Formats: sequence, C-alpha cells, structure tokens
Amino acid sequence: MNAASNHQSRFAALQGQKPDAIDTPALVLDAEAVNRNMQRMAEFAAKHQIKLRPHAKLHKSADIARLQMQAGAIGVCVQTVGEGEALAAGGVNDIFISNEIVSPAKLRRVAGLAQLLKNRSGKLAIAVDSDEGIDRLALAMQTTSAAIDVFIEIDVGQGRCGVAPGPAAVALVQRLQGSARLRYAGLHAYHGGAQHLRTVAERRNAIGQAALRVAATRDALAQANLAPAIITGGGTGTFGLEAASGLWNELQPGSFLFMDADYARNERDNAQPAFEQALFVKSQVISVQDGHAVCDAGCKSIALDSGPPLVHALPGQPALIYASGGDEHGILRSATAGGPLPAVGDTVWLIPSHCDPTVNLHDAMIAVQGGLAAGAVSAVVRVDARGA
Amino acid sequence: MNAASNHQSRFAALQGQKPDAIDTPALVLDAEAVNRNMQRMAEFAAKHQIKLRPHAKLHKSADIARLQMQAGAIGVCVQTVGEGEALAAGGVNDIFISNEIVSPAKLRRVAGLAQLLKNRSGKLAIAVDSDEGIDRLALAMQTTSAAIDVFIEIDVGQGRCGVAPGPAAVALVQRLQGSARLRYAGLHAYHGGAQHLRTVAERRNAIGQAALRVAATRDALAQANLAPAIITGGGTGTFGLEAASGLWNELQPGSFLFMDADYARNERDNAQPAFEQALFVKSQVISVQDGHAVCDAGCKSIALDSGPPLVHALPGQPALIYASGGDEHGILRSATAGGPLPAVGDTVWLIPSHCDPTVNLHDAMIAVQGGLAAGAVSAVVRVDARGA
Repeated sequence: MNAASNHQSRFAALQGQKPDAIDTPALVLDAEAVNRNMQRMAEFAAKHQIKLRPHAKLHKSADIARLQMQAGAIGVCVQTVGEGEALAAGGVNDIFISNEIVSPAKLRRVAGLAQLLKNRSGKLAIAVDSDEGIDRLALAMQTTSAAIDVFIEIDVGQGRCGVAPGPAAVALVQRLQGSARLRYAGLHAYHGGAQHLRTVAERRNAIGQAALRVAATRDALAQANLAPAIITGGGTGTFGLEAASGLWNELQPGSFLFMDADYARNERDNAQPAFEQALFVKSQVISVQDGHAVCDAGCKSIALDSGPPLVHALPGQPALIYASGGDEHGILRSATAGGPLPAVGDTVWLIPSHCDPTVNLHDAMIAVQGGLAAGAVSAVVRVDARGA
Repeated sequence: MNAASNHQSRFAALQGQKPDAIDTPALVLDAEAVNRNMQRMAEFAAKHQIKLRPHAKLHKSADIARLQMQAGAIGVCVQTVGEGEALAAGGVNDIFISNEIVSPAKLRRVAGLAQLLKNRSGKLAIAVDSDEGIDRLALAMQTTSAAIDVFIEIDVGQGRCGVAPGPAAVALVQRLQGSARLRYAGLHAYHGGAQHLRTVAERRNAIGQAALRVAATRDALAQANLAPAIITGGGTGTFGLEAASGLWNELQPGSFLFMDADYARNERDNAQPAFEQALFVKSQVISVQDGHAVCDAGCKSIALDSGPPLVHALPGQPALIYASGGDEHGILRSATAGGPLPAVGDTVWLIPSHCDPTVNLHDAMIAVQGGLAAGAVSAVVRVDARGA
C-alpha cells in the first residue's frame, strides 16, 4: 500500500491529508490492515506449501495485484478479459481468467492479451467447460503466436459453470489436445456456494463433497495419462479446507484482503488465519430528524446485495444501525432505543456487506495509515478495472 | 435519442451496427420506446398544466436531459453535485439538486455550479432541511455573485430527509431570509416510500396523507406571508396523484423514461400514461449444464437490490427465469419444468428490476432503433455522471 500511484484525479490532493479531508461517499482502506491480511495469507500459503493466486476481481487494482505478487503470490485471477487487460496495462504479467469466455469479439481480446503477456515473458490462462468454448478459443488463438494455459472447470457443487466431474472433464481435456496453442494446465474447481455457509461444519461438508468430485476427476484423468498439473480453487470462506485436502495445489481467495460484513458473519475456522476488516465506506450525515439520521451512502456507493452495511463506530461515536434509504441515502437509527444520534455533518464509517461489488462502484480507494480517526492518506489506489 | 454523441470510446464503432455486434454485458435502450415514454410524459404534463422536471439520477446523461428539455421539461433534478456538474458540462442549464448537501467541500462546488449556470443565464436550485444546512449553504454562496433557489424539503411520509411539516418548515423559510444569495423557491415534497406500493389504493392513501402535510405547510407559510411559489415532488409510481391534488405544481419522476421490472409490478393507475420497458441488459450464455444455463450478467452489471431481473424472451427464444449467480454470472432455468434452454453463445435480454443503480454500473447506454432483434445502433449515450 506504499506503491507510488500515478493516478491523476480529483483525489490527487488528498495525499498526506487527514481522513477528515476525504469527501463522501468514499471508499477507504485501512492500509495497515490490508498489509497484515496480505502477509497472513502469504504466510499461510508458504506454511502449507501451496501456491497462491489471489482473486483480483475484489480490488481490480494493478497496484494491489503487484503488491500481492511481491508478497509471494504467483499471479492473480480475474473474472473478465477487461479486468485482465486493465491489470496487464498496470504491469501484472501472470493472469488467470477464471471464467468462461465465448464471444468471438472477447476471444480476440483474449488472444491479444496472451500475446502481450508472452512478449513480456508472462502468461495468460483461462477456464473452459464446453466443446464450443474450446473450439472458439482455439480459433481465436490462431491469430497469435502465443499459447494460453487452459483449465477445465468442473462443477464441484455450486451448480453454476463447470462440466460434470469425471469422464466429461476427460473428454474436454482430450479435445484440448487438438490445438497446439491451448496448453492443458489442470482443473479449475471452485465452490462459490460454500464460501458463505455459516458454520465450519457446513463448509467442511461442502468442500469434502467437492474433494470427492475433484479426486474422481483427477483419477479418471490419470488413467487416461492426463493427470492435472494444477488443481486451483478455494475462496476466503474455505481455502483452509482446500489446502488441507491434499488435492488442490493452488488457492485463489480474494476477499480476505479487505473482508466484509458477510464474511465476518461466518463462524471462524481456526485452521485459517484471522483477517481484519480493512475496507470502509466513509459517509456523512446530511439530515437528522425525529428518531433517525440520514447519511449520503446509498446503493450507488455501497452494494446491498448481501444485506445492509454495518456501522463502524469509532471511540466516542454512537452505535447505529443502517437501513436502505435508496440510491443516495442510508437511514441510521440508534442501536439502543432512544439512544444518541449523530449530528448533521458528522462522519459515519460503514462496513460493506459485500466488498467486491462495492469496490466496483468507485473509481478509487483512499488508503489511510495510522487509523481512520487520526491517520493520514498514504495512497490513492485506482480501481483500474472498474466496470470492466 | 438521435442526438449526435461525441463519445469517443470502445463503443464508437457500434454506430449503425446490428444489436448482434454489441458485446456483453451491455446496457441497451430501445430508442423508440424511450421517445414514446418521453412524449407521453410531456403530454401528460401539458394536459394537466403542470411543470415537468424529470429526475436525471436515472440516466445521468446530459444528452438525454437536453432531449427531455426540448420535449417540454423546464429542467432536471439531480441527486448529487457531481451529477449536476456532469450535466452542466454537457450543456444542461436548469438543475435542481433535490437533496441535502452539508459538506463544505461539496458546497463550494455547489456555489461554483451556481455561478457557472448564472453565467449561462441558467439557474441552480437545492433542497435544505436544517438550520445547519442553510447556514453552511449561505456561507458557501458568499464566495460567488450568483444566487441559488432553495427548496425546503418536508417529510411527507417516507421518513428519510425532510423537516416536519408545518411550523418547522416555516422557521426554515424564515431563516433563509437572512441570506441575500438564498432565494426561497418553495417546497420539496417527495414521497419515495409511496412509489412502489403495489396497489393504486395504497398509493392513493399514501399521497393523500402526503397532501395533508403539504397543505398544512402551505397554509402555515401563507399565514406568515411566505406562500411557496413552487411545490415539487412526485415519482413514476404516483405522479398522477400529485398532479390531481391541486397542491403540487411541478413533477419530478425519472424512471418512467426507461421503466423497470419493479415498477412494472405496480398495479397500473389509469390516470397515468402507460410506459413501455425501454432499458435492457444484453447478456450472453457462457455455459450450459444439466438443467441450467449461465449468462455473463451478474450483480456488477445489473443491480439486484430490488430483486432479480426478468428475462425478456424475443420471438423464438425460450422462457427463462434468472437467479443470482454472483458478480459476473446469472443462472438461467427454464420457466417450465424440463423446458428448453439457450445454447452457449446465445443472447439473453434482461429487464432490470431497478433501473437507476443498473445504469450507474455502466459507462454507456447503446441506443437501438428498429427493435432489439432486427434493429441497428442509433446512438451511444454516455452515462456522464456514472459514479458521481
């Protein structure tokens, strides 16, 4: 979080200022907490001798992706070609698009990105889960001299993308062999549905079932002399389980870096490091009426898809509960009947319930060192792939 | 929707192309439907001899705001100073910030915007609901030679911003008189909570109660020789009721222009014109598995705060139901058990459940004339105030 930012914008004058100077609504990072979360994850991966490829769809920032790689990550995941292009433009050279792309126009951009990264001695990877997807990718890659690493995505329980485990996955790997520019890299086995299961027991059960599917697929592939070199997966809710399974050898969690209110509602798994809340939305009270106050952060600056944000009361601030007030408003009530409300002009810090789509609503994240109350702005981190 | 757009971007090459050429996920306008919605609203206002100041927080586009004014609107509403600045930069000269602003930094921008619009013979208005808000606004306006129209916001039932009706509103108007640059313009009386009440009876009851509060405030003001010149309010769900009340003389609906699935769930009030769905998200099927398909539009390209989008099946397309699949995915299932699914690569058109925050996720809206299936791109409309 000390990386020099070349972001020229309305935020530039903030450098070195107190958090008071940050206009609202704004996305604010506790820079030390981000650093600690990053170090804890890197230490976990090192201790478990497992590769770390954190998901950059969280932060969409090339600066942060490069910091993660300096701290030991082998590369990053992205979810779209636009994210990949934005991070590559910011100097990131090892990128896995952990998603299916089938549009010819986008696949031409995938091929161009593979060529760009190859020219820099980096590499691009992508997921596929269908014959059609492989054929379209192979066609697009003919326009370049680069190759692309290809992961077969298998459905390990989420019921979203991913071919069925076992023989169907073997057939897709065999189809890959027809194209010299598609390099079979391994299996993409991510269970999104398990990440927010509330108890450790539920998550252990879900990843246990996912592991059976991964093992069956690995064994079927080995029998066909197609053993996968890499099995990648795991998110912030479950990566300790994937790491302990002996099957996965690459982890791709993202949210641990910032955390959010919804992950904080999970029962802690002591096999995973503890992560701190590092992402906040700074908001301001614009109206105080009988029994409630109104702040200037609504669903256009804080994502509500996983429920309302929590209010992060600094010492001396009243305990408040946030309710949706529309696009540009949050309704704040005292957490205790008849308790104190803030005054017009006061700052209210919010903890997003879902960090990824909240970040995507903003052009920049303001990093603060020394605490939200008394610290100072240390960097303005651009959300390079905002909207991409 | 025929306005020349000077938007230079990755969208520029789309002009004149078929909708097939629009990469996904993308926001697409049915240009003829937008025009018909705009005309119907203008005719309604003309027939009822009521001023129309549509809310631009929907579209955040200067091009569309100017088209609305050419069609008879006296100006537009915005919700933030950033929206006001973006529309002013695009040539809009009569802007009402229908919200409270209390940050000194933002109020300096408000003053600058008032000066800019005055220099162009336009004008700026703003809402206030507290002593503190008035005093801070007055202080900021001292830095300019411009005046600003000020509306006292009263709470007519939503329980969000707005001072209590009656004497408290009179006291705020009296406080305004202390500053030569604050011009008392009238009352801002918007009932956001009434817009999505499902039955006409519920909405009639809510606006009936709002009208009692407006009338009481108007009468108290008249007794103090402070009768309001303008009473502004009304949204897409209720504007027919405000228009019929004899109290409001300015309407500020926004969503009617594009419509969305949530407004479409309202029981129709025959006193209001019928509006057509004009805003769509074009998505693409990236994966088809046993019993479901997956498209590339998730909560980073379509707002889910008012529920999942509807699938808009064109002739020959299967009837589908959308379920959330995360940031970049939607899960599509047949609307009939065992019914047909689309194929990998197929286009799926989605109707957002909430148009305003959906538009805010995109940099541009692609306007199509001649229908979503066989038409052609007629304009690329920039979301000028995206994220502002």
